[in-house]
Amino acid sequence: MRAVRVTGYHEPLRMDDVPKPEVTGPHDVILKIGGAGVCRTDLHILEGQWAEKSQVTLPYTIGHENAGWVEAVGSAVSHVAEGDKVILHPLVTCGLCRACRSGDDVHCENSQFPGIDSDGGYAEYLRTTARSVVKIDDSLEPADVAALADAGLTAYHAVAKAARRLRPGFRCVMIGAGGLGHIGIQVLKALSPAELIVVDRNPEALKLAESIGADRTVLADGNQVEQVRALTGGHGAEVVIDFVGEGGSTKEGLAMTRRAGDYLVVGYGENVDVPTIDLVSAEINVLGNLVGSYDDLVDLMALAAQQKVTLHTAEYALADFQSAIDDLDAGRVRGRAILVP
Amino acid sequence: MRAVRVTGYHEPLRMDDVPKPEVTGPHDVILKIGGAGVCRTDLHILEGQWAEKSQVTLPYTIGHENAGWVEAVGSAVSHVAEGDKVILHPLVTCGLCRACRSGDDVHCENSQFPGIDSDGGYAEYLRTTARSVVKIDDSLEPADVAALADAGLTAYHAVAKAARRLRPGFRCVMIGAGGLGHIGIQVLKALSPAELIVVDRNPEALKLAESIGADRTVLADGNQVEQVRALTGGHGAEVVIDFVGEGGSTKEGLAMTRRAGDYLVVGYGENVDVPTIDLVSAEINVLGNLVGSYDDLVDLMALAAQQKVTLHTAEYALADFQSAIDDLDAGRVRGRAILVP
Amino acid sequence: MRAVRVTGYHEPLRMDDVPKPEVTGPHDVILKIGGAGVCRTDLHILEGQWAEKSQVTLPYTIGHENAGWVEAVGSAVSHVAEGDKVILHPLVTCGLCRACRSGDDVHCENSQFPGIDSDGGYAEYLRTTARSVVKIDDSLEPADVAALADAGLTAYHAVAKAARRLRPGFRCVMIGAGGLGHIGIQVLKALSPAELIVVDRNPEALKLAESIGADRTVLADGNQVEQVRALTGGHGAEVVIDFVGEGGSTKEGLAMTRRAGDYLVVGYGENVDVPTIDLVSAEINVLGNLVGSYDDLVDLMALAAQQKVTLHTAEYALADFQSAIDDLDAGRVRGRAILVP
Amino acid sequence: MRAVRVTGYHEPLRMDDVPKPEVTGPHDVILKIGGAGVCRTDLHILEGQWAEKSQVTLPYTIGHENAGWVEAVGSAVSHVAEGDKVILHPLVTCGLCRACRSGDDVHCENSQFPGIDSDGGYAEYLRTTARSVVKIDDSLEPADVAALADAGLTAYHAVAKAARRLRPGFRCVMIGAGGLGHIGIQVLKALSPAELIVVDRNPEALKLAESIGADRTVLADGNQVEQVRALTGGHGAEVVIDFVGEGGSTKEGLAMTRRAGDYLVVGYGENVDVPTIDLVSAEINVLGNLVGSYDDLVDLMALAAQQKVTLHTAEYALADFQSAIDDLDAGRVRGRAILVP
Repeated sequence: MRAVRVTGYHEPLRMDDVPKPEVTGPHDVILKIGGAGVCRTDLHILEGQWAEKSQVTLPYTIGHENAGWVEAVGSAVSHVAEGDKVILHPLVTCGLCRACRSGDDVHCENSQFPGIDSDGGYAEYLRTTARSVVKIDDSLEPADVAALADAGLTAYHAVAKAARRLRPGFRCVMIGAGGLGHIGIQVLKALSPAELIVVDRNPEALKLAESIGADRTVLADGNQVEQVRALTGGHGAEVVIDFVGEGGSTKEGLAMTRRAGDYLVVGYGENVDVPTIDLVSAEINVLGNLVGSYDDLVDLMALAAQQKVTLHTAEYALADFQSAIDDLDAGRVRGRAILVP
Repeated sequence: MRAVRVTGYHEPLRMDDVPKPEVTGPHDVILKIGGAGVCRTDLHILEGQWAEKSQVTLPYTIGHENAGWVEAVGSAVSHVAEGDKVILHPLVTCGLCRACRSGDDVHCENSQFPGIDSDGGYAEYLRTTARSVVKIDDSLEPADVAALADAGLTAYHAVAKAARRLRPGFRCVMIGAGGLGHIGIQVLKALSPAELIVVDRNPEALKLAESIGADRTVLADGNQVEQVRALTGGHGAEVVIDFVGEGGSTKEGLAMTRRAGDYLVVGYGENVDVPTIDLVSAEINVLGNLVGSYDDLVDLMALAAQQKVTLHTAEYALADFQSAIDDLDAGRVRGRAILVP
Repeated sequence: MRAVRVTGYHEPLRMDDVPKPEVTGPHDVILKIGGAGVCRTDLHILEGQWAEKSQVTLPYTIGHENAGWVEAVGSAVSHVAEGDKVILHPLVTCGLCRACRSGDDVHCENSQFPGIDSDGGYAEYLRTTARSVVKIDDSLEPADVAALADAGLTAYHAVAKAARRLRPGFRCVMIGAGGLGHIGIQVLKALSPAELIVVDRNPEALKLAESIGADRTVLADGNQVEQVRALTGGHGAEVVIDFVGEGGSTKEGLAMTRRAGDYLVVGYGENVDVPTIDLVSAEINVLGNLVGSYDDLVDLMALAAQQKVTLHTAEYALADFQSAIDDLDAGRVRGRAILVP
Repeated sequence: MRAVRVTGYHEPLRMDDVPKPEVTGPHDVILKIGGAGVCRTDLHILEGQWAEKSQVTLPYTIGHENAGWVEAVGSAVSHVAEGDKVILHPLVTCGLCRACRSGDDVHCENSQFPGIDSDGGYAEYLRTTARSVVKIDDSLEPADVAALADAGLTAYHAVAKAARRLRPGFRCVMIGAGGLGHIGIQVLKALSPAELIVVDRNPEALKLAESIGADRTVLADGNQVEQVRALTGGHGAEVVIDFVGEGGSTKEGLAMTRRAGDYLVVGYGENVDVPTIDLVSAEINVLGNLVGSYDDLVDLMALAAQQKVTLHTAEYALADFQSAIDDLDAGRVRGRAILVP
């Protein structure tokens, strides 16, 4: 089969002919790829930024946002069958450690990350395990949802956590209405009646935010903290979700957080640097957020099936992988680039 | 009646004769003081450190850790009666704002803090309101529990929050086995079977910690992070409670926290300064902690009645207030100094 | 002022001229009535069904679903002011017992129930206390929301409890699409993306249910359990809310509940009669539900302000109280009858 | 190897020589049995009571409470290794259904129950899967903890659920201080400072209850409801755990439950038969309880390692299986009978 592989860092990806993967164990699942998201992380991999961390052996197949159809299953696989439409959770987890057993599989002590440290989805087929496969609704197409597998799942996880403490009449601020924020807005409106205030530097992003559910928007022009406080009766919001995490957003996000409120860090880059007396006297929580669990992905696919969460995508044939990479690198992709074999 | 008052900053306290307070409203409660804790904050008040923040008008009666007997009640007071033994929650709260209505009275939008911004308990009597009065068990004496009203309540609140996520077999680290830590250790052992690891610079404090329930102790000799990690299978603890908050404890506390764990800030002084990538990739939470609610104080008094939480105290007659202040300032008080009228 | 009073059981109500209530204590609030709901309970009061339970002294003013404007406030009232539009929580609670302190004021140990055991709202003015007053949005009119004070609040409370365990993709069944169910449907759609299946004997009620958000409807024609099981993959629903509670609905509701699911009892009449082995082997919970708390009413008013929950009402002048009573008794009221002074 | 098998209903068990099980799949684990609990359920199996429900093919090896040492593991088993001391969760679960993925494996849609519907532990070796194996502390012996695998795990699960809502000063009633109650008492005292009131018909059982932690005991002599209400200020307890579930205990248990309280059903036999108006007006919850999850068993083993939960056992050699069965049937076993190969 065809597979797009990393053969060396600081070199272009290369399409190779490799053996089609086969079922070898009882929990194996072979996925016929229907769509593979092209992510900025893929550019970073080619630049060698992940080489040391992932310890991956070259050459290998890139691509960590994958959806498609079940091609074959091992003997112990009971929840999906050949022909099912599925999306893959980004991690392959052990199912045996304490984290996995309690449903918190993202913190699995023995996980793999296909597309990063093992063969991924820029290919015709991929071997994964039963634990990573989520069946999707008949109304959904793999290429349309593939990019929810990682970026979308991260947004879902943080927003669902926020929604659990948002009562009607509470306020939620989201900083950053880009890729993750765009999903986050849709998820919050599906999960909660809380008032949503979206902050971004880009007026176009704010227009989009309004069109998909933001109740209020604030242009990050230097006065964003004051504006948010004015919109929240001077108190700040019960929850602030920061999809940016750099350029001063952490200090601003904390200043937008109400007494006894939660500030959720999703984007990263700078340090959270806050006096302990401020955390103590206002009793504020700073909550870290990683990608979502398998259960979170099941939930997100339920929202997608209800058309409550949708993505803009630009499809490329697998053979045109280089165009997709180039377009992403040059900022020419509107929405999310998806490779379709 | 006699009352010890602040008549000027950078001056000694002065015992004055002032009118005995009386019931004027239906929710008023007059407390006959049985014990008033002498706290380091009282020294700071005299140094003028609170003058701007509290905006208190001098002279006023100092003392914010109070317990005693109900002397008289207003017409609407239904839960305590004349003669009842009680302890006072440190705040007088409105009962009407959203925080008060949901049981989170510590975040009351209209609270007062007797002893800080209004007349406190270095006196024979004190006027408070029904909302601040917690009945205590007959087996307890006001002078023995007064110091639990503020310092103890702060430790209780943080530890009870921690206990809610500690399952058997989990580990909890406490940094600092001083005044608050000493209460915190007893509270944790009463609420949870989790293994408790106590860290302190002082070998004597660690001995005391062991005698009241610490399962493991770690001397903070520079290798405390490595030692805690070794005691937790290399992972760190599910919960770390930092009663120090300065001198590097925040960085160490975070380094002792397991993936998906909680780091609770109680003590303060330095900044929490942590890369967002660390919070995100390990999905760690940094939780601020203020004093406990009225309900927390009811709980703490239940533990005190069961003799699961006890305090060392040194009693002084009210007239000897200056000795108590001097002894505290000079580090001569073992346990907690209490003024008894 | 004019007030419609119960002067004897099995007699008509009578409009009397009585003194206008005045502020006598610091927490008093005088309400100028804007709307008072006419409820089936009022008919039962006249029939003497509540006489023994309420121990009310006749004559007294009836009416327990009240909204209007603040006419005057006592000296300690900080959260509302003269002229504010407000709705009243149905109970007057003490604020001092353990239940009140933890936000669970519905279980207050010293509550009153105006309109049932003390003067209510079929009048021009009503005296209540600060603890029962919830400010409503400028966009809402008292007469439009008054009926949410009791019936609507009961539906909100049960549905909000259900929503906390409903994830996307889960199913919720509601039995009964009448007065409470009609509010419950709107609340569930505001709080949760779960699929909502509504069961009722009346095809017209099901049409209305669909128009306000039901995803599926099932006619209770004897096969409703089988139909619900068919719509839930044979498993039953994660949550079943029973607004009926009689005529066999409890057995049916339990049979519609999935393993590890919750069956919420709101309506009442018959017994829940279930083998313990069924509760144990399927690990099902049967949850009782009373009217909502003050916080719940604040939440419900936030949904009303967002126009996510609306009521059909039929307004009557206060002087026409007998027509309202007669119309309700004869089944001629569409939606909810409201008296407007 | 030797195995004690059911060869026919209403016939004695028979010791046979059967092939030693071997690893055939990557998740297989072979257990060298160290102890197998002899349970009343085993008597019922021989009487044919489980024949239809389990659909097991005879002959098969009985025994569903098993602990021992890992003899061999499949290639995918990462959390235990040859020689480890372990206890087995009573169910073999799929790990793939929604219940398993969220940590609620007891509600697995594809589970097996070794000893009931497949080969169990009255033998020298047993084949199970990685998902059922919990490592135990070095200080514990398999024969000492085997009986915690099912009966103990059921008690743990209910009590841990109760403990999550018990604050200090709250009361918990346990009805039944027999096999499960005996473990439940120890678990509650390890998890919560709530006051524990134990009710039983047998004065000897109450003496034992006191010796292992009951704060109060009540003889079920017909006045037990009144006695419990007297011990709880007339209100009833916040939580009542019913380990009996027959002979009137459900009506009594509900009458002992405070407003807004939880009544937990663990034992079974009779019906819960309660007016809906009682559930609604007091807002009481009736909670079903099944055996605990894998995580619960990990927790329980942590308590066992801390010696907070211990069992009385009577060991029998495997060859003496008939004596164990006979002694159990005749009521001659003090504590729990354990077969040791």
